[in-house]
Amino acid sequence: MGKRFVYADNAATTAPYPEVIDEMMPYLREKWGNPSSIHGKGEEAKAALAAYREKVASLLGCEAGEIVFTSCGTEADNHAIRGAAYANAAKGKHIITTKVEHPAVLNTCKALEKEGFRVTYLDVDGEGRVSAEDVERAICEDTVLVSVMYANNEIGTIMPVREIAAVCHAHGVLCMTDAVQAVGAVPINVRELGVDMLTASGHKIHAPKGIGLLYIEKGTRIKNLIEGGGQERGRRGGTENLPYIAAFAKALEIAVEKLPDMARVAKMRDRLIAELTKLPRTRVNGSLTHRLPGNANISFECIEGESILLLMDMAGICCSTGSACSSNSLDPSHVLLAIGLPHEVAHGSVRITLAHENTEEDVDYIIEKLTETVERLRKMSPLWKE
Amino acid sequence: MGKRFVYADNAATTAPYPEVIDEMMPYLREKWGNPSSIHGKGEEAKAALAAYREKVASLLGCEAGEIVFTSCGTEADNHAIRGAAYANAAKGKHIITTKVEHPAVLNTCKALEKEGFRVTYLDVDGEGRVSAEDVERAICEDTVLVSVMYANNEIGTIMPVREIAAVCHAHGVLCMTDAVQAVGAVPINVRELGVDMLTASGHKIHAPKGIGLLYIEKGTRIKNLIEGGGQERGRRGGTENLPYIAAFAKALEIAVEKLPDMARVAKMRDRLIAELTKLPRTRVNGSLTHRLPGNANISFECIEGESILLLMDMAGICCSTGSACSSNSLDPSHVLLAIGLPHEVAHGSVRITLAHENTEEDVDYIIEKLTETVERLRKMSPLWKE
Repeated sequence: MGKRFVYADNAATTAPYPEVIDEMMPYLREKWGNPSSIHGKGEEAKAALAAYREKVASLLGCEAGEIVFTSCGTEADNHAIRGAAYANAAKGKHIITTKVEHPAVLNTCKALEKEGFRVTYLDVDGEGRVSAEDVERAICEDTVLVSVMYANNEIGTIMPVREIAAVCHAHGVLCMTDAVQAVGAVPINVRELGVDMLTASGHKIHAPKGIGLLYIEKGTRIKNLIEGGGQERGRRGGTENLPYIAAFAKALEIAVEKLPDMARVAKMRDRLIAELTKLPRTRVNGSLTHRLPGNANISFECIEGESILLLMDMAGICCSTGSACSSNSLDPSHVLLAIGLPHEVAHGSVRITLAHENTEEDVDYIIEKLTETVERLRKMSPLWKE
Repeated sequence: MGKRFVYADNAATTAPYPEVIDEMMPYLREKWGNPSSIHGKGEEAKAALAAYREKVASLLGCEAGEIVFTSCGTEADNHAIRGAAYANAAKGKHIITTKVEHPAVLNTCKALEKEGFRVTYLDVDGEGRVSAEDVERAICEDTVLVSVMYANNEIGTIMPVREIAAVCHAHGVLCMTDAVQAVGAVPINVRELGVDMLTASGHKIHAPKGIGLLYIEKGTRIKNLIEGGGQERGRRGGTENLPYIAAFAKALEIAVEKLPDMARVAKMRDRLIAELTKLPRTRVNGSLTHRLPGNANISFECIEGESILLLMDMAGICCSTGSACSSNSLDPSHVLLAIGLPHEVAHGSVRITLAHENTEEDVDYIIEKLTETVERLRKMSPLWKE
């Protein structure tokens, strides 16, 4: 097989769709008014903003007034967690989350610990899951918030969020889910899910980097993260980024339309996992049943993930070790350690994340090159014995 | 004069320049990698990000490592004020600002007051200025931060920030300036200015809405507002919005190149002010000497700003009453009240803000239509007596 370019790092970011770029351009070129201005130029922007908010809300199953647009998933996570913690501090200062959350959640929780909040970081099982029972056992008198991700960004494990939300509500505790990896990849209706807050990001679903959202169920007590001129119904200051909001709405619409095609993506993922795990001393990380359709996370013993990445990159294949957000770190993935991998195995892990654009030929090429790469590196490894 | 379209609300937002849009497009269409990814697609994005940061830093007179890109000026203001307040709370919990700041600063200070910080809101003089002496008199044992805007968004008054920074440093107090209206309109070198922190926004200088920056002088103690995956040297989580960062850098470069043309803009502003204040019972608000080149803020007695806006909009002219951020409010402008205008006069005020695109013909048209509008509304006003 000749050299190709295969982008298989869609959990890190995705290529903006041409239709998504087209959707945003009028708001850069002509309809660039400030939605808060009370003249024609402002009003056309204001009307478009309202229409896109309505569209996003209907795609997620909520009301327009429950959507706050943010600059990214990370801002939305910070807003949800800090906002709920501060607004409910009089009731209690205990937060429950898991050991496998994204740094946007984990580091926000760590910052809150320094401010006097108490945080329980739940263990996960070997597949990276917590159960609703685990959450229930951790709830104390002073628990005010549970934050459990919808799907893990590294190993793709999907959490039982609906059950967790039910447990939270039985105990009068708020439930938030970081759904940055899940929105657009699996069907999500916030009302059916039953969470109080949910976060999502545009650039994981073929919109540009720099737009996210926070769903806040009507009536939820939450403080602002960014104070300003009363935008987003007083919940988030800053002139609205209408071009990216348009892009995000379009990307979400396309993602929802394309959800049936995720079965094809999942079949490609399954073939990747099946073929690669035929290699000796090789394992798949995460759940095989509760798993994002595009995610394959594989550990190869006796070699380094970074070396694999380098050779894959030279073959024209983009994939990653852990998450892009922590891939500049030399520490082994906190997620792989949490599911019980020894340090040395965690170090030899690769994350391949497929999207709609990927083809069976891409998968053939990844299998061919990754197999070659692993065999080549193992031959050089002093640790390797067949 | 026939009907025209004249956009004269450039303090609310500006039209993105075509060159600015062109600059961002490659990062949407081809170079859309995540700068944190350690493969070719990520590395091309990372290199571009570094180059744009370098460019922005050199245009502002600082080092690349001192620039944190944010999603807007408001986020930057929140980050600077909250971040400095929290990081230095052990030293003291007193903050000094002015009564005429943007809501991004005022509402952040109000939120801090609820958290146990003490805030002094300095009065301004009839032109909307505070002096370095006013600031010095307000400094107490427990003062940790002074935040004074570089130029007012409603009346265009420029504050003596360099002198204020010097006073702050003589007392070991941090100095921050919201320069959202000033960057690109007047020459600014952060090192010469001597502030510890400065904020700016892209959409006020012909970049899109959704990008801002915070300059933090090396060594300044400040906490994060948004925790996440270690982006922006650990100071601001969230995947970087490279398209808008590219746009912002280009817009800033053009703004700095075009600074000499601001003399032409200032002459147009002066003509506007001179002609309009020939009308009876009409005054200009703010300083005539320390003033943003594009700003004309005029009060017409006995009529309502909203009615003026409506008729101006019908004539194809976009301008505003106060700031866009509070223009949906019926309260009179806090800035106009702070400079001593009675409520009823404050209500009859209009802000016209010019930019490079505006022409002498635009100014002729504004003068003609605004004069007609004022005369027409006054004829209908029960308060008006010639």
